[in-house]
Formats: sequence, C-alpha cells, structure tokens
Amino acid sequence: MAKKKKEIPLTGITVSKEEDFSAWYTELINKAELADIRYNIKGFVVYREWATITIKIMYAKYEELMEKNGHLPLTMPSLIPESNFLLEAEHVEGFAPEVFWVTEAGSSGKLSERLALRPTSETALYKMYSLWIRSYKDLPFKRYLSCQIWRYEGKMTRPFFRAREFHWIEGHDVFSTMEGALIQVKEDMEVTYQMLQDEFGIPIIFFERPQWDKFPGAISTYAADALMGSGKVLQLPSTHLLGQNFSKPFNVKFIDRDGEEKYGYQTCYGPAISRIYGAMIAYLGDDRGLILPFDLAPIQIIIIPIIYKGKEEIVIKKAKEIYNHLKDKFKVKIDDSDESVGNKFYFWELKGVPIRIEIGPKDIEKGEIILIKRHDDKKSTIKEAELESKIDKIAANYTKEIKEKSLIDFESQVECVYEKDAAIEAINNGKIVCCGFCSIDMDAYQCAELVEKEIGGFVRGKRVDEEKHEFATCLICGKPASCTVYIAKSY
Amino acid sequence: MAKKKKEIPLTGITVSKEEDFSAWYTELINKAELADIRYNIKGFVVYREWATITIKIMYAKYEELMEKNGHLPLTMPSLIPESNFLLEAEHVEGFAPEVFWVTEAGSSGKLSERLALRPTSETALYKMYSLWIRSYKDLPFKRYLSCQIWRYEGKMTRPFFRAREFHWIEGHDVFSTMEGALIQVKEDMEVTYQMLQDEFGIPIIFFERPQWDKFPGAISTYAADALMGSGKVLQLPSTHLLGQNFSKPFNVKFIDRDGEEKYGYQTCYGPAISRIYGAMIAYLGDDRGLILPFDLAPIQIIIIPIIYKGKEEIVIKKAKEIYNHLKDKFKVKIDDSDESVGNKFYFWELKGVPIRIEIGPKDIEKGEIILIKRHDDKKSTIKEAELESKIDKIAANYTKEIKEKSLIDFESQVECVYEKDAAIEAINNGKIVCCGFCSIDMDAYQCAELVEKEIGGFVRGKRVDEEKHEFATCLICGKPASCTVYIAKSY
Repeated sequence: MAKKKKEIPLTGITVSKEEDFSAWYTELINKAELADIRYNIKGFVVYREWATITIKIMYAKYEELMEKNGHLPLTMPSLIPESNFLLEAEHVEGFAPEVFWVTEAGSSGKLSERLALRPTSETALYKMYSLWIRSYKDLPFKRYLSCQIWRYEGKMTRPFFRAREFHWIEGHDVFSTMEGALIQVKEDMEVTYQMLQDEFGIPIIFFERPQWDKFPGAISTYAADALMGSGKVLQLPSTHLLGQNFSKPFNVKFIDRDGEEKYGYQTCYGPAISRIYGAMIAYLGDDRGLILPFDLAPIQIIIIPIIYKGKEEIVIKKAKEIYNHLKDKFKVKIDDSDESVGNKFYFWELKGVPIRIEIGPKDIEKGEIILIKRHDDKKSTIKEAELESKIDKIAANYTKEIKEKSLIDFESQVECVYEKDAAIEAINNGKIVCCGFCSIDMDAYQCAELVEKEIGGFVRGKRVDEEKHEFATCLICGKPASCTVYIAKSY
Repeated sequence: MAKKKKEIPLTGITVSKEEDFSAWYTELINKAELADIRYNIKGFVVYREWATITIKIMYAKYEELMEKNGHLPLTMPSLIPESNFLLEAEHVEGFAPEVFWVTEAGSSGKLSERLALRPTSETALYKMYSLWIRSYKDLPFKRYLSCQIWRYEGKMTRPFFRAREFHWIEGHDVFSTMEGALIQVKEDMEVTYQMLQDEFGIPIIFFERPQWDKFPGAISTYAADALMGSGKVLQLPSTHLLGQNFSKPFNVKFIDRDGEEKYGYQTCYGPAISRIYGAMIAYLGDDRGLILPFDLAPIQIIIIPIIYKGKEEIVIKKAKEIYNHLKDKFKVKIDDSDESVGNKFYFWELKGVPIRIEIGPKDIEKGEIILIKRHDDKKSTIKEAELESKIDKIAANYTKEIKEKSLIDFESQVECVYEKDAAIEAINNGKIVCCGFCSIDMDAYQCAELVEKEIGGFVRGKRVDEEKHEFATCLICGKPASCTVYIAKSY
C-alpha cells in the first residue's frame, strides 16, 4: 500500500460533459485553474499560469507559420482616434456598439478627441499602410500583429470563448490584384486547417458567411466553425476579402508596373488565440479534465514516486535519475509533494499532463517503469532501458492520436431537410441542418431572421469546400434556391 | 567594377551621434525604419518590423531567465476599476496624474465606474493574490506578466525611450519573510545585469533611489541607470521592496508554519523591454546606424552578390549555395535587389546586420569569400571551406566584443566634488557628480530640489554596490553627510 498522508477530498470534476456541457466547462476552468472569473470587471478574466503557458506556445506556433508564409510582425498602439474610425462607414457602424472609449487622462481631464480601445486594427493600420506602400515592388505587403483587443460584448461572456478583452493575431495583407487577395484568403484557410486541426486537434469547416453576417466593411467573410460535437458550432478564425473597400478611404495606393497609381486589394485574417484555446480545451477535454496536444502541455511528463515506508530513498533517487534523463528533451516534473498518490493521479489528469510515470520499489527491483497516457488512459510496463525510445514514440504520436479520435465525421452531424418542421426537429436533435436557401445576399436576410426565430439556429453560410446545389427551393420562402446553406446553433 | 543600376541617393545618417545625440537618434529611428512617429495620437508610435522582431527576442530571453528563477507567467486584464486604485493611498497619489480612463462603452454610454488603462498592475493583481495565496506552502509565490502599460506622460516623448504606451515585463513576488523579499530584490538586480549588460551590451549601475523618487507605495526602490556615455543617464529596470505596504490593504495573507495568519512580504520588478531596446540602439549605434548583439539581429548574415556583366549566373549560384549552407543555423538573407552594391552595403550597415558576406566572380575563382563584421568593420578573406567554422567563431564572439567595447569605465565618468560650484562645472562638462548628502530620506527633499534648480542634475541615489562614506558634509545644506550620492542629468 502506498503511504497515505493527509488525504484531502478529491477535487475532480463532478459534472459530466455530455450531460451539462456548460457546467462541465465552468468546473474545468475553475478546478484546473485556467482562468479566474472573480476579477472585478464584468467580462474580464485573469488567465492563470497553466492557460498562459499553453497560449504562449500556441502564439509561437501560429506566428512561426505566418512568418513562413511571408508575414512580418508589427506593433501597433492600442488606441485609435475616433476620426480614423469614421473613415469607413460600414466598419464604424458595425463596431460602434462594441467600442470602449478613453475620454479622460490624468489631471488634465477630458481629452480633445475620444480614443477607442482597438476592437480590431484596420482603421489604425491602414493609415500607416498609406504612408509605407509606394510601389508594386512593396507588394505583396504581408504583416501581422500579436495583440489583444477589446469589445463591449453584449452576449453572455464565458472565459476564453467570449470575453470583453481577448488575445489574437491579426494578419493584414495588401496585393496589386484581386487575384492576389483571393489566393491569400485561401492561404489563410489553409493556415487555419494546419493550426486548428493538425496542431490543436479541433475539427473545423469553412463557410462563406451570408452578407448580413460578414465583417463590417468586407466584400465577403470566410469563417471556420468548430464542430463542438453537440450540434452547436463555435466561430473560430475568419478571413475577410476587403478588396478596395478600405484602400480607397484609407488611401492605400501603389504605382504599378505600368506607371499608374492604383488602390491596393486587401485581406485581413483574425485567429483569436485565447478563443481557440477555449475551443480546444472544451472540445478535447473529458470528465476527468483537460486533454492537451503534446507540444502544448506546460508539463509533458509527470513522475510520481510511489513511496513505501523504508523505501523512500531508493524511490526518490530513481525518480531523480529518470527526471535528469528526460529533462533536456521534455518538460518534466517530479511530484514529491505530500499529497496522497491517488490525489496526485487525479490532479495531473485534471491538468492534462500527457504522460504519467509511476515508480515504486517493486518496479525498481524488476528494472521496470510504468507509463500511462492521459488521453486514452493506456498503461504500459516497460524496461528501464527502453524509456527514452518509448517516450519518444509516445511524444511523436500523442497529438496524432488525439486528432484521429477527435476528428468527427462532419457528414454524420448533418441532416438534409426540405421542410421547416424537419429542420426544427433536426436542430432540436442536436443536428446541423443542410438545406436550400434563396441566397446569402442581403435579399435573403428576412429568411435568415425567420430561421433564427422559428428554427432556433443560425445560417452559417455556404460551405467553401462544396459546390453542389441539390435543393430546388429555399427552405423558408419557397423561391428557387440559389445555394445550399447550413443552419446550426452556436456558442 | 560592380554593375550599377539606378543609383539612388544614399540614405545614411547625416548627423553625428557625438555632436547631436538627439537628432542622430531621430534619424536612426526613421532611416532604419524602427518606429513611425506619424501615428495620429501624441506619444503613441508604431514599432516597425525590424524593431518588433528584436523586441520579441528580447522578451523571450528575459522570460526564459525569469522562469529559470522560478517565475510563472500570468495574463491580466488591461483595465483596472477605479475602486481598486484607491486602496493604497501613496500609490494612487503617485499614479493618478498619469492614468488614461475608460469612461464610456458602446451605445450604452457612460460606465458606472471609471476603468484605468493599467499604468502598472499591482492594484489589479494583488486582489487576485489575496484569493490565491492561502498557506506558507504557496510561498514564495513568483509570477510575471508580459504586457503593455499606458501612462499619460507629461515629459517630451521619444520613441522607445519614453512613450505613453510601452511594453514591459512585471515581476510580482510574495514571501513569508522580509529576508525572502530582500533576497528577491538582489535576484532582480542580478537578472538586470545578466540581461542588460551581458545580453544587450548596456552598461548599468544600480542606485537605491531617494525616498522622494521611489515607486509610489514602496518601502524602497532600486533602479538601474544606464550610462549613456554623455554624462546623461537613463533609468532602466527598477525593483521595489514593497514589504507589507500592499499586502495589508489588499489582504495578501497566509497561514504560517506556526498556524498564525500573517501578511506577505512583497517585491515587484519592472523591466521595460521597449525602453531597454531604445537604450540599446542608442548606446550601441554609431554614425552608420544600428549595432545589434548577434542573437538580437532580425537578419544575422547578409549575402551581397557582386554582379559583373556576364558573370551573373555563377555569382548568384554561389550566393545561393552559401545561403543554403547557413540557413538552418543562422538568420541569413541574399540581397539580390537591383540596388547598387554600395547602397546595399550602406543599407545593411544602417540595419545593423552583424555579418556581411561579399561574393564576386574573382573570389569564386580563388575559392574565397569576404566577410565583414558590422560592429568593428573588420574584413577577412577566408577560404570557402572555412566558412562555417569562421562564422561560428564570429557568432560566438560578436556580442562579447560589443560588450567589451561598450562597457565604459564608470569611475572615469565620475567626478567627486565638495562644493556646489564644482558640481555645476562637472555637470556642465558631462560628468556624473559624486558627493556627500544629508540623507536620501524625505528630510533631504529640499536639498534635492536645490540640486535640480541650481546644479541642473538629479540625485540618482546611493550606489548599491558601494559602502564608503568619504564625505563629511552635505553638498547643499552643509549639515553632516549621512551618505554618498550621485547626481546626473537624465533622459
């Protein structure tokens, strides 16, 4: 029997994810100490250590890929003068209800102009682009910011998912032609798949959003919806084709090869890293706590010495040996606290540490080590000499295994419907509805409002990877369908 | 002769650093494209690509050392409710004149409470510490934030040196004893030396600041002054002994081993990375532009093909070979633009790229390569086979060489004086004055005001690494001197 010290009540999660996702998520956030919602401004939370470390790694991976694709980093001020905001009419109309305003400073009191806490950076950045970009030789001009933004969010906030301050990357690119901009939109979608699906294990589908749901000021918006496995989707990164909608008011011009002055064609892309983190832990986690991709775990290997009276020294010595053996290659820790072994198991499972190593005196006698993988709970007893090769193998496959398990079959979530009643039933059964729709232009807005009111879902748009038009009529108005859309509940 | 194409006017720096530091710095910032001051809010600037890349590396190095010393990262909201601010009286008094206030949001108009854009995070963070810290087992509690802060700065702003938004790291630590806190203050100073002197090449001296110049709310402040080589100093990171001044109003308590509830002893430390960047480029740069420590250069090696008519192909081929050879180990680039060779040389010198490789057809014939080091302009002709070993050697020594050149002898800058007139003369001659002073407590404040008014310098405080008291009387009031202080002009 393992030595028991001060057994304290287990602090595991008490709600089942399947039964009550919302309560489960709240417990996960609290018990794994990922965020603290007790900060005393509504919608603003503290990200605790464990979340901050993972989010930093996610940023580093994302930035590396953005840079590989030719983006350079910039640092912009957080404040935007109100006068900049007014330059693009749709944009200001879209964002005005969400802006926090700085109006006073120090002892001098009122400022002469209100300053917006940036809700997004177009109106700050493109004024600078108009100063920097001169010639076709400067194009493509691809830049990114890693920063936080503020939005006075009306909906209910939830840590990481939806908050009044969040942390993201903004890509802002300028091209000499519309074709260049369209290729960039595709690159942004490809980057999203590489990061979200391959690195973070979150299944996504890209939709071209309806005109009433696009980014304010854009020509069109392509947004990734994460499939949360419950019929509900969560909007994740979106990329926006801006065309010349911003380059004209902001005067982003270049002299082309033919000597003529032209307006640039722009795109912008906004992966919200803190929100992606929320989606990832929500999607991958289980009733025992976090599951994290191997690279993203703040601790990758936890060593638990199984201490028996009289054998303390030999066990601790072996634990340290293994630690020293692994520490240069992996993020590894020995838990030599005075908690019980059982509590230690629960705690590090809750935290999502990918590999647990158990070492007891009997294992030492046999020259064996016990390894347990967090995501599938698989246990293996290995010879000490195999330790490194075995760990290397687990490390190399861990994220891939999570991904294979997590990538649900989109088609199985979808139900094609031809009548409103069938749509209502499907949505109530946690399905994503696929149907004919008159269009995704503004003339279909009334149909979309009815979808929201009567079916209880939202029109997510046209799938980017799909061309088929099998529906003859619009589900709502019965007019000829111009496209196939998907309807789902969303977080 | 190198092929000449479209020779454009050289864009090098036109002012000598020694003759007019201020104009030189402004030209460096503009011509090397480090910051853009044309952003339309006073005191807010855009950090351009070249500066942002280096600042990111500086952050990574600093964070790594903070973590090695036991700090974990946290992410705090940028806004602080006014009610938090009011909890520590000296603190609020000190920072109130510098706070930007958010008072309005969205269409709902006025907020019920003013929210401060954090000028520093104590009053946000310590409320959370009071929730998180319970027992002596939680101590020491060492955390850091990497974030930006906002101060409505009254003095003239200058990119990186002094701005209304800047980027820093904040360390916030809690200990069970005053001794623990004092040891942390020493660790913070040691970290500052390791980073600023060893990694960034900036010579510094630590002073215990006079009471009238300490961090608002602290017991005492220890600040690094960078010696800018002109008699003027620039305040860089400071570490503050807070003792129980914040733990009492913010209720940061723990149950000690003896079962008693006690208030923690705190320290905080604030290296302003963007300001350190400014100090570094100002201190190391010369009349040809930037000089950067090897690790911090966005491009470490620039390859310039010297193209002659008819030999283009062979030269470009060799340049690519060398590029491929070095690219996995170093940040390397070929400049194959159609600028003249001369302009390329000037441009990359301005940017501070540590190593320039020149390749011309004659060198290729001889199997030779020409290397030039930026910081000392030393040229060497090497055999192609030696390339890697030679570059390795330069890379390993480059920062050390900069440092040796840059670490000026502090003593040579100092003049000890016994009379006010001598002090005035010394300050006018660009010296740092060393003299007796009645004290650095508040009772000496009137003497300090006279120093500022009549001598034209500021009392920087007592040197931390010095114990001697050789002066009998205070330079100003003639009363017995309790300490030796240093007086200098500052940026």
